[in-house]
Amino acid sequence: MAKKVKNVSESYVTMTELVLPNDTNTLNNLMGGRLMHWMDIVSAIAAQKHSNRIVVTASVDNVSFGKPIQLGNVVTLKAQVTRAFSSSMEVRIEVEAEDIPSGRKFASNSAYFTFVAVDQSGRPIDVPEATPETDEEKEYYAGALRRRQLRLVLAGRMKPNEANELKSLFDFEQNAK
Amino acid sequence: MAKKVKNVSESYVTMTELVLPNDTNTLNNLMGGRLMHWMDIVSAIAAQKHSNRIVVTASVDNVSFGKPIQLGNVVTLKAQVTRAFSSSMEVRIEVEAEDIPSGRKFASNSAYFTFVAVDQSGRPIDVPEATPETDEEKEYYAGALRRRQLRLVLAGRMKPNEANELKSLFDFEQNAK
Amino acid sequence: MAKKVKNVSESYVTMTELVLPNDTNTLNNLMGGRLMHWMDIVSAIAAQKHSNRIVVTASVDNVSFGKPIQLGNVVTLKAQVTRAFSSSMEVRIEVEAEDIPSGRKFASNSAYFTFVAVDQSGRPIDVPEATPETDEEKEYYAGALRRRQLRLVLAGRMKPNEANELKSLFDFEQNAK
Amino acid sequence: MAKKVKNVSESYVTMTELVLPNDTNTLNNLMGGRLMHWMDIVSAIAAQKHSNRIVVTASVDNVSFGKPIQLGNVVTLKAQVTRAFSSSMEVRIEVEAEDIPSGRKFASNSAYFTFVAVDQSGRPIDVPEATPETDEEKEYYAGALRRRQLRLVLAGRMKPNEANELKSLFDFEQNAK
Amino acid sequence: MAKKVKNVSESYVTMTELVLPNDTNTLNNLMGGRLMHWMDIVSAIAAQKHSNRIVVTASVDNVSFGKPIQLGNVVTLKAQVTRAFSSSMEVRIEVEAEDIPSGRKFASNSAYFTFVAVDQSGRPIDVPEATPETDEEKEYYAGALRRRQLRLVLAGRMKPNEANELKSLFDFEQNAK
Amino acid sequence: MAKKVKNVSESYVTMTELVLPNDTNTLNNLMGGRLMHWMDIVSAIAAQKHSNRIVVTASVDNVSFGKPIQLGNVVTLKAQVTRAFSSSMEVRIEVEAEDIPSGRKFASNSAYFTFVAVDQSGRPIDVPEATPETDEEKEYYAGALRRRQLRLVLAGRMKPNEANELKSLFDFEQNAK
Repeated sequence: MAKKVKNVSESYVTMTELVLPNDTNTLNNLMGGRLMHWMDIVSAIAAQKHSNRIVVTASVDNVSFGKPIQLGNVVTLKAQVTRAFSSSMEVRIEVEAEDIPSGRKFASNSAYFTFVAVDQSGRPIDVPEATPETDEEKEYYAGALRRRQLRLVLAGRMKPNEANELKSLFDFEQNAK
Repeated sequence: MAKKVKNVSESYVTMTELVLPNDTNTLNNLMGGRLMHWMDIVSAIAAQKHSNRIVVTASVDNVSFGKPIQLGNVVTLKAQVTRAFSSSMEVRIEVEAEDIPSGRKFASNSAYFTFVAVDQSGRPIDVPEATPETDEEKEYYAGALRRRQLRLVLAGRMKPNEANELKSLFDFEQNAK
Repeated sequence: MAKKVKNVSESYVTMTELVLPNDTNTLNNLMGGRLMHWMDIVSAIAAQKHSNRIVVTASVDNVSFGKPIQLGNVVTLKAQVTRAFSSSMEVRIEVEAEDIPSGRKFASNSAYFTFVAVDQSGRPIDVPEATPETDEEKEYYAGALRRRQLRLVLAGRMKPNEANELKSLFDFEQNAK
Repeated sequence: MAKKVKNVSESYVTMTELVLPNDTNTLNNLMGGRLMHWMDIVSAIAAQKHSNRIVVTASVDNVSFGKPIQLGNVVTLKAQVTRAFSSSMEVRIEVEAEDIPSGRKFASNSAYFTFVAVDQSGRPIDVPEATPETDEEKEYYAGALRRRQLRLVLAGRMKPNEANELKSLFDFEQNAK
Repeated sequence: MAKKVKNVSESYVTMTELVLPNDTNTLNNLMGGRLMHWMDIVSAIAAQKHSNRIVVTASVDNVSFGKPIQLGNVVTLKAQVTRAFSSSMEVRIEVEAEDIPSGRKFASNSAYFTFVAVDQSGRPIDVPEATPETDEEKEYYAGALRRRQLRLVLAGRMKPNEANELKSLFDFEQNAK
Repeated sequence: MAKKVKNVSESYVTMTELVLPNDTNTLNNLMGGRLMHWMDIVSAIAAQKHSNRIVVTASVDNVSFGKPIQLGNVVTLKAQVTRAFSSSMEVRIEVEAEDIPSGRKFASNSAYFTFVAVDQSGRPIDVPEATPETDEEKEYYAGALRRRQLRLVLAGRMKPNEANELKSLFDFEQNAK
């Protein structure tokens, strides 16, 4: 039996990848789709660690790609569950790239992937609650609700005026004053 | 020389993939990261066709994954530029899956990827304007501005109260009445 | 139940591939074997669409490779069933390559692959008849019989003098006059 | 400097492959396209050994696929140049499959691939003549001329009535008597 | 410029891999060769981090494989430099496998890989000294000399009677008393 | 039923691989881990041929890597069982690389891999005895005992003073005289 509550830090996973020729475009830069493939795997492992279940990708939030990552660079991906909602879990991933010979190291981007835990026949199944401990974890935990509402609004499954949490992010009137 | 204006339909691309064992998880379902890898390739080709340039992925909007796609299924991805902004292009991708022996065919999901056209040294370079023709193309063209503002707000590069187009989507006060 | 007759156009499939480093030889040109791998997949999908069955590759007709296709090129493969014979289907594949930045686009080659539809235990099973509609489809349909006899003669399963259709292609005496 | 004449046996190459999950279709059988990819690599190596040059695939003759090869089987490919024509070489490949635990071993198929030797800028360059020694090698050597004419006729680059060697294979009138 | 001395802990790398179908044999267990491929990549990154150079694999010490790792398991590889010798570095790798749904986690094996730092033309180049800090790091540091002598003896590049450090490991006479 | 005794030469396997871009590091040299992957596959096939069983990798002896093997090189791997011990088999692999255009061919390295034959549920199962015939085979057969003791000592499963065969290799006192 999975325990009912787990600290978010128990789901922490680090993955390291070396950018090989087939991962790159004709400018010798890592292709965005390949990076998303790695982000999906590392965050799926974090969600598995939290839930001790098979998990399936439910959604990916907006991802921006910054500086190009190059052939031969080392890419480090760090993933941790931010919050759980019945059978789903939001995972935050941070990506860092390093050109080791030059010592150049830079934050590439961060993203949120959402997973659903399922049983052997693919049906959603409840997961333990996720407890944040540090201040940073608490901030990601709080923001998860807002991001969830944005996902539901964008997917047409929630009306904007019901998205109370989201309002604080897009409170146009207030901000406009 | 690229011409200054192109119809969005000139960028249309179709890609067909067969789901092979290494694309699947332990439930024999296509992994989300693998699908995003394909989505990135097909939409990069659409952006290349519009710009006749090398392109790099700039961002991916929210993607939701619906019904699981299974081992042996045929996945069809259709991509077309919706609108161009100086050196960047938004591409809409629609994904459809089909279990051919059973004849079961279903829309899997849709997404928006944004690309930047670059020259051989990786510097952004202007692209032709993209002209919509059909009603559907015009709708995607109009929505592109709203989605662009959402990307900028989410990336912290635009203040919500400056995102005029976005307001119509999230006009909480009005909707709440 | 599969219907008894289908138009050949219902089996039409387009596949788009980007030539990546691992697909190329030391001249940075697409390797022939990799292209045949893609041709096999796209034509298998066409045969699946016609038969709504699992299909296995039975044979490949002579394939010639023309102009080299290069790293970074976009390869478009179009496949359509030309004719069905009890449990087998002939598929015609056309391959086109494009160097998008330069706008150079050229027909690479065409080929015929033959597939057999099988049931879950791998036994051949009948497929719907394939009806050509356009003039071009009718021409490929007519030629399919000739190509089939050539396959049987080359495989030692038909005597040349029984290959009536083939004669028209290789009627040395008549031509020699 | 390459020597002017080489025995065909000097080009002999053996390749062994293990059929892994990603090489198979949903019946767990090796896909035809994957096998052709291997055939292309092994025969390219044979042509390289004969010519000491970079080689490119020029054409593939009719290939038939027999008994299905299964997941976990060991596939042995043997390739040897049969004959050289100025800058081109015909290579014969024989494929054998083995299910080692059961001891079941069977000839899968054979095929002819043709390669052109090229210099660093991709221009055709002459290769040594290929001398057959054994009776079997002499037979393949003799047949190479006939197969070459068939390729030229099928590619529309030779008229059937000029294909003297081919006549002996398809001499319908004589055979018909 | 690389600094002259670095703590071994600065080279620490963690890599996480998910066992996919193509990594497994017909028993659905991870193949040893695939695991060694991952071990080579993670330890090369550790050696790169210590040296800030391109590195090439010089040798691999005896590796034993214990309990089978299965399809869908998560494999965690941890690598850290143990000691540097002019241009070469020994790296210790520890491999752990986890079946997340069942919570079963076990040490799989450990190994030592040796790398040489090279410049752009592939010539060996000196690396910083590696300083151990913890007791465990000091133990691996001390053992590195012994393992190095074993490598040299096994490669026929050192006579057993000159391998002073090695004697303590294989001091048959003493042990036999 | 497997026969009780087999000649070691019956297990002989040759594998040929072409070094492709994704097999190489940023110096365009074959990565050690990729070579070990190939060594594992070819030696597993040799062990399968001897035992007619599914086999799993048990251990790899010290491997040194010599001259770099480059992109486009042809790698030939030859594997043969040296000796069998109840359910395990030692396999010797020799690796040779060739730059065909330049005619440069060189021995790269050799190694010993050990495999265990298992039944369908993964339990060890006895294999036929392996009989050496040539002088070279007899030498490898004799050395297998010594290497096995080294493996056991290194794995902490045999005390050095019980490793009688190993003594002849590391007889420090005698050598020191």
